Amino acid sequence: LLAILTRCCCDVDMPLAYPTPTYSLYPVLAEIQCAPVAEVPFGNDYRLPKLLEKTGAGLTIVCNPNAPTGTFIAPEEIGELAKKLQGVLAVDEAYVDFAADHCLRLLKKHENVVILRTMSKGYSLAALRFGYALGSKRIIDMMIKVKDSYNVNAITQVAATTAIQDQEYFRENVGKIVRERGRLTAGLRDIGFEVRDSQANFVLARIGRPTAREVYEKLIEKKIFVRYFDMAGLQDKLRISVGTKEQNDILLEALRGIVRQEK
Amino acid sequence: LLAILTRCCCDVDMPLAYPTPTYSLYPVLAEIQCAPVAEVPFGNDYRLPKLLEKTGAGLTIVCNPNAPTGTFIAPEEIGELAKKLQGVLAVDEAYVDFAADHCLRLLKKHENVVILRTMSKGYSLAALRFGYALGSKRIIDMMIKVKDSYNVNAITQVAATTAIQDQEYFRENVGKIVRERGRLTAGLRDIGFEVRDSQANFVLARIGRPTAREVYEKLIEKKIFVRYFDMAGLQDKLRISVGTKEQNDILLEALRGIVRQEK
Repeated sequence: LLAILTRCCCDVDMPLAYPTPTYSLYPVLAEIQCAPVAEVPFGNDYRLPKLLEKTGAGLTIVCNPNAPTGTFIAPEEIGELAKKLQGVLAVDEAYVDFAADHCLRLLKKHENVVILRTMSKGYSLAALRFGYALGSKRIIDMMIKVKDSYNVNAITQVAATTAIQDQEYFRENVGKIVRERGRLTAGLRDIGFEVRDSQANFVLARIGRPTAREVYEKLIEKKIFVRYFDMAGLQDKLRISVGTKEQNDILLEALRGIVRQEK
Repeated sequence: LLAILTRCCCDVDMPLAYPTPTYSLYPVLAEIQCAPVAEVPFGNDYRLPKLLEKTGAGLTIVCNPNAPTGTFIAPEEIGELAKKLQGVLAVDEAYVDFAADHCLRLLKKHENVVILRTMSKGYSLAALRFGYALGSKRIIDMMIKVKDSYNVNAITQVAATTAIQDQEYFRENVGKIVRERGRLTAGLRDIGFEVRDSQANFVLARIGRPTAREVYEKLIEKKIFVRYFDMAGLQDKLRISVGTKEQNDILLEALRGIVRQEK
């Protein structure tokens, strides 16, 4: 869906804009479309950077909750941005299942907003590769024009429809992650990590000594895999997916050992 | 897959070439990619037009068997074309399940050939939307570079793998269509249509009086739907899908009535 949107809205003269750090696919989409990117760094508060209004982009993407920071921008703040933009504003809600709020109400007021969702996270159906877009008729019609001629196949449509109807399973599933996210966050803080409250199914944890890279490498030795991004603003942090209770306990135990060793 | 190939091979300076009449999607793909088209009309024999070698196209597509003519070009003739082209030659084998031969053996000799297939026809799995490409590492690598980041979903992969392993069902299925194609062709000729032997799951039937358009419209009144293309070389012809024995009998009966009425 993002690829389709980029194809609709961007070209050599129409940049793709987004705040950074964020999902690493966005610049790739721009490159395929031969469009320049306008990357606007977040401040320390991870609120929408003011400059994002002024890029003249054909498409602006805000990942909310954002990856890999787990931070969430209030829908009203995103609505304010939508008003100021000439181009399309895509809110990538891939992780919204784990957040306390969402941007659906913006669709009534802002014709240039499109929301992207997936069943890969809260529904635990990553292998289904099912995503969907919600937006005004104008935007959806434009996307239909340039998308491949065929739709999601029939089996996948049935599976996705069935899954979305089972809200009880969905809530239970999300509830498990949200509870463990709280426990993992508290455990990490207890060890000495600085962890911002996350609204996603991962947390971003900052550490001074040992360095994030050292911790990352020592975890690999123990066959525990977290994400380390060697990028501006992320070199002192680890992105850690919320696992099962057992997995989180193993991780916290390992981290306790690594940090104690250092002292 | 054709969209991906067009994206790889064509742009404003690199046309998309194909012989006409053929599948109506090709010019649409070119338009999305902002690439010009080089349409080279078939002669009356529906063999490869000589001019197809000289278009300077980034991508040349030959639909074989061709839609909507049902005609088939010998693989060796397509190999000769591949040798002369600078760009990529895609053989769209969407209908090859119903043909007596295919182009797979060209892949060993011609690095610029890519073959596209689907499970929508001979496997009766149109709703699965499963297509695949066969070609040299060079071409497949190039396609992987610009395709969307995710693959066909897990359920569809299992379904397609299971289907392709059941060659007995496939052969039985194709056999039914091929037998009915022969009976439909004979029946249409008997009524007065001029019908070329088809290698696809449809036939192209030519008629003088009543006109093809008149026949098409009278069939609609009887709730029988065939294809009429208001395009050069096709205005005196109808494309008729091979149905079940019962469907074909109903069609032939209806056509007999329409043609008799005219006399």
